[in-house]
Formats: sequence, structure tokens, C-alpha cells
Amino acid sequence: MRVLVALGGNALQRAGGDGSWQEMVRQMRATAPALAALARDGHELVVTHGNGPQVGALLRQNELARREVPPRPMSVLGAQSQGEVGLLVQQELTQALTVARVPRTVVAFLSRMEVSAKDPAFRRPTKPVGPYYAESEARLLRKREGWAMDYDGARGGWRRVVASPRPVRWLEAEAVARVLGEGGGATYVPVVAGGGGVPVVARAEGRYEGVDAVIDKDLAAGVVGAALSVELLAVVTDVPAVAVGFRKPWERWLGAVSVEELTAHQARGEFAEGSMGPKVEAALDFLAHGGRRVVITDIPSLGRALRGEAGTRVERA
Amino acid sequence: MRVLVALGGNALQRAGGDGSWQEMVRQMRATAPALAALARDGHELVVTHGNGPQVGALLRQNELARREVPPRPMSVLGAQSQGEVGLLVQQELTQALTVARVPRTVVAFLSRMEVSAKDPAFRRPTKPVGPYYAESEARLLRKREGWAMDYDGARGGWRRVVASPRPVRWLEAEAVARVLGEGGGATYVPVVAGGGGVPVVARAEGRYEGVDAVIDKDLAAGVVGAALSVELLAVVTDVPAVAVGFRKPWERWLGAVSVEELTAHQARGEFAEGSMGPKVEAALDFLAHGGRRVVITDIPSLGRALRGEAGTRVERA
Repeated sequence: MRVLVALGGNALQRAGGDGSWQEMVRQMRATAPALAALARDGHELVVTHGNGPQVGALLRQNELARREVPPRPMSVLGAQSQGEVGLLVQQELTQALTVARVPRTVVAFLSRMEVSAKDPAFRRPTKPVGPYYAESEARLLRKREGWAMDYDGARGGWRRVVASPRPVRWLEAEAVARVLGEGGGATYVPVVAGGGGVPVVARAEGRYEGVDAVIDKDLAAGVVGAALSVELLAVVTDVPAVAVGFRKPWERWLGAVSVEELTAHQARGEFAEGSMGPKVEAALDFLAHGGRRVVITDIPSLGRALRGEAGTRVERA
Repeated sequence: MRVLVALGGNALQRAGGDGSWQEMVRQMRATAPALAALARDGHELVVTHGNGPQVGALLRQNELARREVPPRPMSVLGAQSQGEVGLLVQQELTQALTVARVPRTVVAFLSRMEVSAKDPAFRRPTKPVGPYYAESEARLLRKREGWAMDYDGARGGWRRVVASPRPVRWLEAEAVARVLGEGGGATYVPVVAGGGGVPVVARAEGRYEGVDAVIDKDLAAGVVGAALSVELLAVVTDVPAVAVGFRKPWERWLGAVSVEELTAHQARGEFAEGSMGPKVEAALDFLAHGGRRVVITDIPSLGRALRGEAGTRVERA
């Protein structure tokens, strides 16, 4: 079976940690064996990943160094983070695959994701990126950089917000399909669409331009899954399954669930925007566009989830 | 013919410019049509590139932001720069290929280059990276970071120096060969081994570790050329050809030249270390390992050089 694993931020970087490379290495080293186990079970693997903390760090570095080094646009930071996290996944997954005696070559592809310049998201930026600011700084940045800024009540600070447009087309899909074709999936593990891919808009034939935006990595995973004829999408997050009534007295964890039931929960607003919401949306998207199965789970439960013993599992009827 | 174009720093960033992304875009936009013309002439294209100014900028950003953001190791900055420059080449070359009516998909592969932990270069770091420092700063950095620092008499400043080990094996070679195989070269343009590739050493089977080093991008191009059965290596630099007696009264530009003659000039120390030296060495390496032709030239002369009308041209006997 061809499995696409979408790694969330926590699989790569510990929340509240020190944000160092050494910590990323430790975290990915803990994550990689569960992925290698899927390969050992005979599955083809494709990996995609988030990049929130990494782009946050790059944004801050760009800002603090701006008097000496001209800051790069956000799309470029996205490409840089694909290099950074791609290397991390390559190194640690290569090692785990070797230990599991299923050596494969892990290959990271710089991925661009086309979005529509007319996407309504560009008129209403909602996705917070980078550090928190005091109100005076926020006002300055809004003026100097033209950034949209939003107040985060929970943390009591201001953050830059950018558009989160829907992914439309993954520009490198055919090249990756070629690597996986004719049995290539037993030899190669592509790492693709990191951070949802670098968002680009087509300005003219063949002319793509990076835009300051963040594509939801789980929605991007849906596009990747469809493009590569993936059978199972594994959305790896920091909870073992999807819950309805999350953290409420009537909380209930979902195991095997039908598309209809999940759709109904989604419609009732059970899943938080920017968190479980897009994961469920990506799952339903993926199943609507040719995918067969989705599991949403955490790293410790990943293997059992694929065997139908853990996690939230959705299958196309 | 399968052509590997090795782009030097000047094809990507103007010397003495402001180092901004916009400037990189302008520079690559000026460079790309010459590459697209090779595709229009029916050649397969593979692109590799330098990353000196980009890694320099990242090093400086890491240093200036270090109180807030833990600095990344140099190997990670190399990976980030591959994302950055990969995106640049992708965007501008895609556009130029479209304009030239030979649309192809430009795909950047994160590339790791294995080096030997026993390479003598690690005992004698010689490659300057990043900004210039005053002596007091240099002393501090040597102590705090354990960096080797070297005085640059010409510019009157201190710089960090790292090892420049020889590239041994390109870890992603087979995946790229697969993309180019069975006529793929008419559809895809791989961008590979940026900045010479991320230098890694094998610590155990399957366990590769990034190291603080810089691989000469022209030597890496030789390894790439051999791995992909490239017929012609085009080393693009900022002079139209190789000169003997460069900038001396007896200066002579080399046109068609034999391997023997070039080897003899090299042995006499005609070509500067860290500049034309490694380009000539890469050329001779490439020809010794299966390559057929090399041209060393600048962007304006590239097309004519391939037709034997400009540049320095070396052919295997």
C-alpha cells in the first residue's frame, strides 16, 4: 500500500522546547522508527511535514538581522525551511530505515504549490506566523512592512497574520510520480510539500511568483495524495485520535468512523479551526478525490492505527 | 546531448550588490535565457549552482539573532540555501523555458554529498565563509564557537574558515537519474548539489551526519556529471574563458585546449586556488571519469561556447 504520512509540528519540534537543531534531531529521531516500521510492513512511504516553528525562527532571524541582511520574502523562507526540515527527515529516516533493515533512499523535493490569486483568503489573512509582539511594535510593523497584525487574546500578544489560500496544484507532482513509478516506491521515500509547499501564483504562462501566505499542510497533503495515487493518508498529530466534545465532559474519541459521520461532526463545528479542523477537512478531501483510507493519530499509535487497532480511521465506502 | 551547467555566484548575485532577493531575481532572470537556449537547441539540462553569498547571509542572520533563535549548524544553512537558490532557479528558468517555447519542469533536489571523515582538509580549514570581523571579534568567536579564523590581508579583516573536503558520493544520484531516464531529460530539468551539496560523513551504516564544511561546487559538479552520465559540463563563471598569465602582460586566453595542455598549465600553478583552480580541476576530473567535453565560459558566451566558437573548450581525446 502507498502511504502518505503527514507529520505535524510536534513530530519535529517539542512544544515549549528550546527550538534548537539538536532538539529537532532528537524529536525526529523518536518519530522516525514508527515510519520505518511501515516500510518494514511492506508499505510504500511518502512523507510531508509542517514548518511552522522553522519559518517562525527564520522570520525572527530576518527581522533581527534586517539592518545588515536584506530580509527574504516569506515564500523564500518557506523554501529554506523545506531544505532544513527535508535534511532532518532525510538523515533520521535513513538511519531508522537502515536499523529496520529496509534501507531506502530518502529524497527531499523542493515543492511549489499553486494557489489562486483570486482566493478569498488573500482578502482576509487569518494565519498567524512568527513571534508575538507588543502593541507598539505591532503598530510599527503594520506601518513599515504593510503586514496585517492580529491580537491573540490567549497569549496576550500581537502576531503577523497572512493568507491561508487553498492548494490548487502541486507543480513537481509528475517528477515525484516518476521516481515512485515502476516499483520505485520500494527504493525511494520522497519528502514533499513541506510546510504545505511554497505558495506560488501563476502571473502568466510559465511565470510563477511566490506569495506571502501559508498553505495548510494537511490540505496540501490531500493534493499530494491525489497526485501520487496514495491509498492511505496518515495524519500524524499530538493526540491519539480525533475527539468530539474535545476536552468537554462528553468528550468521545472516534475510532472507525464513516465519511458521513465525520462530515456531520465537521458541519456541527466540532473541530477547531487551524487545528483538528483542517486535518478532518484534508481527510474528507482526500477520500473525495480518490483516496481510500485515512487515519488520524499520533506517533505511538501509528502502526496500530494502520492495522485498524487505534486512531481515528475513515474509509471510503 | 546531456549538459550540466554549473552556475557560479555571479550568475546568481551581483558582486557588490545589495544582496537582496530582488537582486538575485534580476540576476537569475538575466542568466536563465542562455540556459533555455541550450534546451531549445535540443540539449538535456541539469543545473548546479554555488551558494556562497546565500550561506554568508544566513550565517550573519544566525549570529545577529543568536540571543533569541538558536543558531543552526552550517550543514543546515547549506540545506536552507539549496531551498532558497533552488526556488530562484526554478522560478526564473521555468519562465525562460516557457518564453523559449521549450517548457520543462524544473525540479530542485535537496542534495547531500558524502565526504570522508578522514579527509585531510578537516585538519587544515582553508575555505573562508561569512562576514569579515575585527580582530577582537575574531578572538571572541574562536573562543566561544571554536571556529578557526583566518586573516585576509587583501580586505584587512578576519573570517571564519572551514574545511573544504573532496566530494566522494552524491547520495541522491539514483533518484535524479531515474527522473532523467527514458527520455525524462526532455521534460525535466533537475537542479542539484547546490553549493556543492550538504557535506555529510557516514558515522555508521545508514547514519549520515552533517559537518561544518564547504564542498567546492565545481568539484561537486564533476561528481554529479559522472553520476548522471553527463556528456558536457559547462562551468559558468564571470570571465569568457580561462587565461594563462591572467592579468599579466603575457596573458593569453585559452580556446580549444587539450587535456594535456590544460594539465600542464594547472601543474605550473597558472590557476588561482579557490577561483579558476577548482574549475580546471573539476574539468579534468570530469573528463577522467567518463565526461566527454567541458566548456568554461561566462553567460553571454555560453551558447557560442557549446558550438565551439567561444570559451575555453576541452575534449577527451
